[in-house]
Amino acid sequence: MKTEAFEKYESSVRSYCRHFPTVFTTAKGSIIKDEEGNEYIDFFCGAGAVNYGHNNEYIKAKTLEYFSTDGIIHALDMYTVPKREFIETLETKILEPRGFDYRIQFPGPTGTNAVEAALKLARKYTGRRNIFAFMGCFHGMTLGALSATSEMFARNGAIASLTDCTHIPAPYMVEGLDVVKYMQMLIDDDHSATDKPAAVIMETVQAEGGIRVFDVEFLKAVREFCTKNDILMIVDDIQIGCCRSGSFFSFERAGIQPDIVVMSKSIGGIGMPMSIVLHKPEIDVWKPGEHNGTFRGNQLSFVAGKAAIEYLLENNVEAETKRKGDIVKNFVEKEILPLNDKLELRGIGLMWGIDCSKIDSALASKLSDLCFTKNLICEVAGRNGSVLKIMPALVIEDELLLKGLNIVKEAFKEILADY
Amino acid sequence: MKTEAFEKYESSVRSYCRHFPTVFTTAKGSIIKDEEGNEYIDFFCGAGAVNYGHNNEYIKAKTLEYFSTDGIIHALDMYTVPKREFIETLETKILEPRGFDYRIQFPGPTGTNAVEAALKLARKYTGRRNIFAFMGCFHGMTLGALSATSEMFARNGAIASLTDCTHIPAPYMVEGLDVVKYMQMLIDDDHSATDKPAAVIMETVQAEGGIRVFDVEFLKAVREFCTKNDILMIVDDIQIGCCRSGSFFSFERAGIQPDIVVMSKSIGGIGMPMSIVLHKPEIDVWKPGEHNGTFRGNQLSFVAGKAAIEYLLENNVEAETKRKGDIVKNFVEKEILPLNDKLELRGIGLMWGIDCSKIDSALASKLSDLCFTKNLICEVAGRNGSVLKIMPALVIEDELLLKGLNIVKEAFKEILADY
Amino acid sequence: MKTEAFEKYESSVRSYCRHFPTVFTTAKGSIIKDEEGNEYIDFFCGAGAVNYGHNNEYIKAKTLEYFSTDGIIHALDMYTVPKREFIETLETKILEPRGFDYRIQFPGPTGTNAVEAALKLARKYTGRRNIFAFMGCFHGMTLGALSATSEMFARNGAIASLTDCTHIPAPYMVEGLDVVKYMQMLIDDDHSATDKPAAVIMETVQAEGGIRVFDVEFLKAVREFCTKNDILMIVDDIQIGCCRSGSFFSFERAGIQPDIVVMSKSIGGIGMPMSIVLHKPEIDVWKPGEHNGTFRGNQLSFVAGKAAIEYLLENNVEAETKRKGDIVKNFVEKEILPLNDKLELRGIGLMWGIDCSKIDSALASKLSDLCFTKNLICEVAGRNGSVLKIMPALVIEDELLLKGLNIVKEAFKEILADY
Amino acid sequence: MKTEAFEKYESSVRSYCRHFPTVFTTAKGSIIKDEEGNEYIDFFCGAGAVNYGHNNEYIKAKTLEYFSTDGIIHALDMYTVPKREFIETLETKILEPRGFDYRIQFPGPTGTNAVEAALKLARKYTGRRNIFAFMGCFHGMTLGALSATSEMFARNGAIASLTDCTHIPAPYMVEGLDVVKYMQMLIDDDHSATDKPAAVIMETVQAEGGIRVFDVEFLKAVREFCTKNDILMIVDDIQIGCCRSGSFFSFERAGIQPDIVVMSKSIGGIGMPMSIVLHKPEIDVWKPGEHNGTFRGNQLSFVAGKAAIEYLLENNVEAETKRKGDIVKNFVEKEILPLNDKLELRGIGLMWGIDCSKIDSALASKLSDLCFTKNLICEVAGRNGSVLKIMPALVIEDELLLKGLNIVKEAFKEILADY
Repeated sequence: MKTEAFEKYESSVRSYCRHFPTVFTTAKGSIIKDEEGNEYIDFFCGAGAVNYGHNNEYIKAKTLEYFSTDGIIHALDMYTVPKREFIETLETKILEPRGFDYRIQFPGPTGTNAVEAALKLARKYTGRRNIFAFMGCFHGMTLGALSATSEMFARNGAIASLTDCTHIPAPYMVEGLDVVKYMQMLIDDDHSATDKPAAVIMETVQAEGGIRVFDVEFLKAVREFCTKNDILMIVDDIQIGCCRSGSFFSFERAGIQPDIVVMSKSIGGIGMPMSIVLHKPEIDVWKPGEHNGTFRGNQLSFVAGKAAIEYLLENNVEAETKRKGDIVKNFVEKEILPLNDKLELRGIGLMWGIDCSKIDSALASKLSDLCFTKNLICEVAGRNGSVLKIMPALVIEDELLLKGLNIVKEAFKEILADY
Repeated sequence: MKTEAFEKYESSVRSYCRHFPTVFTTAKGSIIKDEEGNEYIDFFCGAGAVNYGHNNEYIKAKTLEYFSTDGIIHALDMYTVPKREFIETLETKILEPRGFDYRIQFPGPTGTNAVEAALKLARKYTGRRNIFAFMGCFHGMTLGALSATSEMFARNGAIASLTDCTHIPAPYMVEGLDVVKYMQMLIDDDHSATDKPAAVIMETVQAEGGIRVFDVEFLKAVREFCTKNDILMIVDDIQIGCCRSGSFFSFERAGIQPDIVVMSKSIGGIGMPMSIVLHKPEIDVWKPGEHNGTFRGNQLSFVAGKAAIEYLLENNVEAETKRKGDIVKNFVEKEILPLNDKLELRGIGLMWGIDCSKIDSALASKLSDLCFTKNLICEVAGRNGSVLKIMPALVIEDELLLKGLNIVKEAFKEILADY
Repeated sequence: MKTEAFEKYESSVRSYCRHFPTVFTTAKGSIIKDEEGNEYIDFFCGAGAVNYGHNNEYIKAKTLEYFSTDGIIHALDMYTVPKREFIETLETKILEPRGFDYRIQFPGPTGTNAVEAALKLARKYTGRRNIFAFMGCFHGMTLGALSATSEMFARNGAIASLTDCTHIPAPYMVEGLDVVKYMQMLIDDDHSATDKPAAVIMETVQAEGGIRVFDVEFLKAVREFCTKNDILMIVDDIQIGCCRSGSFFSFERAGIQPDIVVMSKSIGGIGMPMSIVLHKPEIDVWKPGEHNGTFRGNQLSFVAGKAAIEYLLENNVEAETKRKGDIVKNFVEKEILPLNDKLELRGIGLMWGIDCSKIDSALASKLSDLCFTKNLICEVAGRNGSVLKIMPALVIEDELLLKGLNIVKEAFKEILADY
Repeated sequence: MKTEAFEKYESSVRSYCRHFPTVFTTAKGSIIKDEEGNEYIDFFCGAGAVNYGHNNEYIKAKTLEYFSTDGIIHALDMYTVPKREFIETLETKILEPRGFDYRIQFPGPTGTNAVEAALKLARKYTGRRNIFAFMGCFHGMTLGALSATSEMFARNGAIASLTDCTHIPAPYMVEGLDVVKYMQMLIDDDHSATDKPAAVIMETVQAEGGIRVFDVEFLKAVREFCTKNDILMIVDDIQIGCCRSGSFFSFERAGIQPDIVVMSKSIGGIGMPMSIVLHKPEIDVWKPGEHNGTFRGNQLSFVAGKAAIEYLLENNVEAETKRKGDIVKNFVEKEILPLNDKLELRGIGLMWGIDCSKIDSALASKLSDLCFTKNLICEVAGRNGSVLKIMPALVIEDELLLKGLNIVKEAFKEILADY
């Protein structure tokens, strides 16, 4: 295993490589290989960036086709054919069928840049500086997004002022607290010390917060709260969007429409860097160039992004995600939870977490390590990393899925023997 | 020209497309084509992201070769072969020959993310919050980088607190002011109201500030100031790096070594999204994962990035840049400046600006429009957009370069007739 | 009534004069007179600054005696005899008998300056920037204190960043919320987005918040929370201290000792400007002069302050306050509350509030106006000014107290006739 | 010397008492006595709060007269006779004769509270958050004023964000810098990273900055800059006002009128705590009670303040100040400066500083100590406390003045013998 170059030259900030200490080479669907010929089942999915599998045949072919010509690759925000086709496809295949009327903004191709753009837009439109975000959320690492992100480890890295956000306890955090009523109180009480916000930003499922699925009633109530108080609702669908929850947008299950939707990760199909901000036409108060970024016009991303939409529709990915989600749920409930009654399962679509915090916060991390030795890639999430996260490709073969789940089960059995 | 989809669906934040209102299709070297078959000479170079030409033959071939296999595309910061090879190539071909010992950090693939990482690292290492930046600079659009960026239009878009930066007038701004002495005063005077900074961040050539080339003495003096006061020196080489100035790093001409170097744009060779932070080993105080980002492991960028280094060495790009820079300088001095004695030429390597502000701030913009009608793509920069920016690919053919320069000359002649 | 000079020359910021539109001349005990010979019973007590009555005979005589000599008046923080005597009296007569060991700091003679000093000290001692404050609180109008103050009207006047405070809902605000458990969660949860605070600052009775008396269990629990988490507890006793609650310090009823106590208003006896910060010896990390202010050494205040302590001990003011408090309580319960079952009485010692918000937020203000026409001075407090505040001198004669209460009752009867 | 009580019980923040370690008792005019019968000449003047001498006969008599009755002492901002008379006297005796039309605001009775009020008002009126202040200034210790104060020792005590101020180098700080032109550049340059300010706040003589007298041309240029750019000019006349400079307002010598003037210290005549904000009628956008403070209605201060105005007019204090200022200037130039050619004298009216920094920064402090042993009270100011400050009462007898100056001279002679 030749890792000296990394150890010698790469910054100590590197992270995942420490949990999965090998050198990867090829990847196809849900299988990744390393330099020594080992094969791993991927239950991690590039943190959600390759929902349709590594090197997805269809998307890859389309992208390769474009890349094999002299099609322009880098075009900033100039007009190009691939960009036009992506826009048309997203509008006609995804947005219109759902009755959604959104303008599309292309910021720098990272989720955090998209969140920064969304927050700026909400502030510009309302003229208000404050933002409500929920504890347990993750919205990115650049200073504007980080102000909204609740994770202390990430925040403490800034050594700078993180301002203009008020964090609201998530519904699962404080027993007996009606969170929406609490937010209304913050708006209404003339002694709340809290400025009325431009927007509420939220994930519908807090992934990094520990696979916390907000229920439909809560999502509806937040939407209603925002409408009633003339506050924008921003949904960060970076990780839970792109079908991960079982529908293209994660909020469809609640029948609501946010004012702004932020997407990234799998929007670029096979890991092509891309992010988008969808916003209602009436809030489009941007001046030209007021938010920009060099790589906002990567044409390979547009091509792959378009192909990804075609692929997911053609292959019924939404329904498949739900079906496979049930497989995971049933398996864990039947095979793993019975191993210890302090384990807790949470999830939706194909994002699941087994919460081990009631046994030992360090347990999930040990499980992840053990899984890796059994050729399964599986990450942790949640408070103190205490949740084992199961996030396979949405198109994983049933057999592989079960194989992976059995590895998880074996790992639990081995580890729990010590508890 | 089919632009309805953009006009109907794309956010009003779109910008360059307004100056170059056509739909582009292919691009090769320094020629871009549009849907109607028009060909344009490119003096804009994707804002500096395609220094080696659009679809550069060598880099493209290497990237296509990798892309044609099932090589893993998206790998976060896990170890992969392309990443290892990029690291080894950068270290052995670029850093070691120059005697530089830097660790490499891969943040989210945009310049602004790299700047955010650099600022965090400097603050962590020193325990200080303040940053010195120069007026006239551009460091990015996310809130941490934007706090350092001096452009008011960009800053005003935030509607949020921009904190923890002190802006220093650039050397060309205040006649008679010794800028380094001024910074020393801010450190020493116990009534300066200015906290000692963690770092000084700077471009060696302010591109957006109006193609302002800082002289060697100033760069040395800043380095000395930082060393003497135990402050880190961060060079933002996002636009002026990657040979644009005539050497790989823009600061080589001053014989100095910054503590942190931030790169992006052409580091990904043919427009592949990528950014890096180089930092001295002794300041590597990052905890694993303390700054992250989904697309920090785009393998196509590593492959293209490695190929770009090979290409630039093989093809003597540094020397060629200087040679072509002289062509531009001589042409403008001989053919354009004589048209009006209020015109001013500034530049280095292959980044040049013709400052029209003493005639009319709106002039450069009119020139850019006129050039476009003559099939040349050429942007403006500087205060109030008053500088016409000439930034061709470093590998542009001499003939095309001269053809483009003649278009610029013709545009000046036509426009200046009205003044 | 000669008020032209005020209307013509005084800033529109003037406030109480609008509610009590006459020109006052003399004041003695609980009676204030105006220029036209009218006499008013004072249930307002200079917002708590003349707890021992206007021109209190004993305190006044002592102060006058000093003032009649050439005793130094203004001495900054130089040593003087009156200051020494005040310190000795406070220590031996108030602090030692209660078993309290506090150092005394004299900031500029306003409550807000004392709060600023307390917050600085807590931050210096702990090295933490954040402060927990409770919604419903009032801690002052200068920017540091205002950051802790929760009243939106006051905050909105700043048009500047109010930073480094986290506001916690007061116990009465959110049904079912265990406020101390909530604060503990904010400390413990690694996704709370909330920095561990240097201190919790609180009033034990929120006066401006609407005469909200925190119960003994809550006060104890906050003390315990602070101790357990190594956080300082700051009690703002500016309005509710100096016997107003029935004991010299308002927190005595809970048997707790804060780390820092802030006092002002009646500490200067007869309205002499003064404020003090009491802090435990171990947290005395001040450097000489690190917080200062010109009028921190007003000797008349020291003389009056010492006399006030002598007076309150001699005259059993603590017990008298409780006894009279019972008179108020019984009167309102028997004579006023029965007038409308939506009225609510809250209070302690000699600070009482009749909450009219369930009938009409504007009611209290109308009552105050009507009382004034009946020669009683009585203010409003609370959310939207919906609480009629009864705060007579602690030494008011029983007869006057009852006379005033009967005016309040008459006013209620008249006003409620319209509802 | 009984100082145990202070040492045992007073916070370590106490400061002046360390330089003048005795217990003071009485004070009359320019003589202060201590408990052991020593008499000291006062060249410190309570940091400028007793310009008319300790226990000034006339002012004291008037105040005592009022205090001997039952005149109301504490009245918040209710109308009273003493307040009306103070307002009328200030308007008719001071403002009208100078052609000034100002509204008067009474904040909490400290200079820092007045500065906070002035900054709030400027921000409210203009809707802008930023403030320009000059390096070398001192505006107070509460967080809003401290953000403007440039002294690092004071700022570092905050451990909190000091925001919304941009500090401009004072004219004496950077050789060759045209400070007003520099401010204009910050407004005009679209890359200045500096928001247009609501106001420029300044002292006309920086006392704490080292007795730095701004020349008339500079004051006029700042006024012109503000007018031209629609920015408010705030003069902080807390220490240099009340005749200290030779005219009631310090800016009279420049023939300008600020939009807001902040006063405190000697406005209360004999050390009575008081501060005022004068602002032009057209900027009076205060809502009632938007800035307040308990002790803003101390009637003794109004009485003393009115008497002080009468006194200064009757006794020709402005002219006397100039005359005595010349005595100081001539004495120092003739008797002290010749002792060492590195000494520098700066001053105006009766505020003078002998700058010892070119010999030794610690020199001034040693001189102050030595003067005290010779029965003269004399403080230091300026960068690193390197300036010996001579600030006697404006009404000091010539004989005492010369006696004090001779002590200073003797101290210099003794100390300089060691250099």
